[in-house]
Amino acid sequence: MNPTPFGTNTNTETNTDTDSRTKTRTHTPSAAVPDALRDFETPVAVLDVARVRANARRVVAYCAGHGLRWRPHVKTHKSLRVARIQLEAGAAGLTVATPREAEIMAEVTSDLLLAYPPVGEARLRRLMALPAAVSLTVALDSERALDDLAASAEAAGRRVGVFVEVDLGMHRVGVQGPDEAVALARRVRAADSLDFRGILFYPGHIRLPVEEQDADLAAAASRLDAVREALERADLEPPVVSGGSTPTIWRSHDFPGITEVRSGTCIFNDRDMVSLGVCKEDACAYTILATVVSTAVPGQAVIDAGSKALAKEELRSAGAGYGALLGHPELHVAALSEEHGIIRLAGSDWKPRVGDRVRVVPNHVCVSVNLQDRILAFENGAAEAWPVEARGRF
Amino acid sequence: MNPTPFGTNTNTETNTDTDSRTKTRTHTPSAAVPDALRDFETPVAVLDVARVRANARRVVAYCAGHGLRWRPHVKTHKSLRVARIQLEAGAAGLTVATPREAEIMAEVTSDLLLAYPPVGEARLRRLMALPAAVSLTVALDSERALDDLAASAEAAGRRVGVFVEVDLGMHRVGVQGPDEAVALARRVRAADSLDFRGILFYPGHIRLPVEEQDADLAAAASRLDAVREALERADLEPPVVSGGSTPTIWRSHDFPGITEVRSGTCIFNDRDMVSLGVCKEDACAYTILATVVSTAVPGQAVIDAGSKALAKEELRSAGAGYGALLGHPELHVAALSEEHGIIRLAGSDWKPRVGDRVRVVPNHVCVSVNLQDRILAFENGAAEAWPVEARGRF
Repeated sequence: MNPTPFGTNTNTETNTDTDSRTKTRTHTPSAAVPDALRDFETPVAVLDVARVRANARRVVAYCAGHGLRWRPHVKTHKSLRVARIQLEAGAAGLTVATPREAEIMAEVTSDLLLAYPPVGEARLRRLMALPAAVSLTVALDSERALDDLAASAEAAGRRVGVFVEVDLGMHRVGVQGPDEAVALARRVRAADSLDFRGILFYPGHIRLPVEEQDADLAAAASRLDAVREALERADLEPPVVSGGSTPTIWRSHDFPGITEVRSGTCIFNDRDMVSLGVCKEDACAYTILATVVSTAVPGQAVIDAGSKALAKEELRSAGAGYGALLGHPELHVAALSEEHGIIRLAGSDWKPRVGDRVRVVPNHVCVSVNLQDRILAFENGAAEAWPVEARGRF
Repeated sequence: MNPTPFGTNTNTETNTDTDSRTKTRTHTPSAAVPDALRDFETPVAVLDVARVRANARRVVAYCAGHGLRWRPHVKTHKSLRVARIQLEAGAAGLTVATPREAEIMAEVTSDLLLAYPPVGEARLRRLMALPAAVSLTVALDSERALDDLAASAEAAGRRVGVFVEVDLGMHRVGVQGPDEAVALARRVRAADSLDFRGILFYPGHIRLPVEEQDADLAAAASRLDAVREALERADLEPPVVSGGSTPTIWRSHDFPGITEVRSGTCIFNDRDMVSLGVCKEDACAYTILATVVSTAVPGQAVIDAGSKALAKEELRSAGAGYGALLGHPELHVAALSEEHGIIRLAGSDWKPRVGDRVRVVPNHVCVSVNLQDRILAFENGAAEAWPVEARGRF
């Protein structure tokens, strides 16, 4: 990691306790921990709001250049304030995965896409109870989901848009080919309470470094072409073709016929995105501020950011460890317990002391955000706690 | 997994919607999903309260048989109601890792152990603000943590107990040998506001199947012996020797001089504990209830329990996947996205349909609980939502 715009902080701290053991301590200069963050209890998530805004502008500019809409997935941030930044930058609607995300985000947009199969009576009840002004679209891949949705929408007296989800090679969800896509789209058209609004795909299997994505992308594009052509032949031309993931974000225009991009991670970025070449280190807007709590074991420092702050997810690209240390490109968080992160110091001249603070870029930002009650939004030298309103289920 | 006491559920469900597509559906009998859970939105955590009580009784009986106290770590459940079950069963005090856990658990016990270095002014402020009636003990391994704690305690006008944490081979935190343990214990004795209450260790490195733990356990015991003997020679005999992890729980009495066991996971258990031989499948009290949301990709079913419900942690013992399916011992959750769990069906005769429900035992229960707002406590055929009060930081 390069030094961040936060700069370095030569942190001379005076302990103001009155006890006789009080002493003035000069901390090792700790890159990238600004003064304004010094009093906060750790571990805590910190957002560089200027970077969030810059990330949003970058995506909107890319989309504008290719005639695409950005309908960002809010799973990454689950925050109304971050959603407002996205919408103010030019996002057209929002994407959600859960009823709670939909309920919260209905406060800031009337154009919601549930990019998740709306299966189960309880889930449908919550979706049908969204404010009437919300234009809801859902993605699905089964007759069962479609029929239950149609029945619920009719009972609730609302119209719901449907994207038929298509599998372009990830093999998670999505119909497998043109015939099934046509059959489902026809069934949507036949339902009085539903509107066929297009097709949706998620190319989450394309994670190679950006410069090596060509073959996988061509295969996905070919599958997409086949589905689109079959729908057109059946007089079911999809008004919207919704795609995009952050690893493929700058290649979104290579998916034939695509009209919108849902990429969510790009608003914060993370160690995975840096290692895939999707962004530079200075586009990582989210870190965990942590404190060194032990140096008792030789050759390592232990910080208070563990799996309950960073999430213990392997790097999806190649590489070891669970987080990068700002200002210490030679180091990473090598091991995690629930409340401990272990940094092995071999190869570094950093001499951590108990009480020092560091900032960690997690491997996968979405799952780290999901662990937080609140995020310290840091801008213009001041920090403010932002709630993570759409976290949780209820 | 064996069939659970919940039994099987031949679930004939009538869709009561008035739509013309309404039909009566007979679900595949789904083992281990009781009727009382049918209406709940998924994914949701479910607790078998009878099993929780049985697990508590088993640990208390073991401890009583070996003259040990059980001071369970609440990080596993973060719930006041579960803590009450532990205390009613005979637990002597509670162990916590965070200020929030301490604040919440102070409602049900006056004997709290923070098994975590109390480093940082904000953390110390919260600890010193605990109700005066709370007897607080903390574990630490550094002079810096000790001196700051002493100063804070003196300023707050309270006494705090100290355990010197000793590394028995895990190499996470803890002083490295007898000399350092004696030096820190002396420094505790010299601080007016602190009481030396003993030593603490966490044998988290001993995770082998129970029957193969002997060599690692002997090495740890030898390190423990050396520290205890040095302290005794220095007239600093530890009143308490606090140890125990769930993987070693039934071997706790093999640690020389041990007086208390902090094991936390044993209250719920998980796939890891089953695979290590620590417990049988029928001691797993916590599951995630999930719904099949897609069967579009041949050979697999997708459920709505992903990494934001189960946590994407590798099995710490050997084995693939992220969770075991109750009633389907031939299957496991093979892959996770944030809101999707993928079950590969090869080798199973289960024919899942969209809308079917399953229950999943996570690999590591503590991190799954930490993802929940609430847990459905299921007992005597009825379910009640229990909050997870100590989740989060603030």
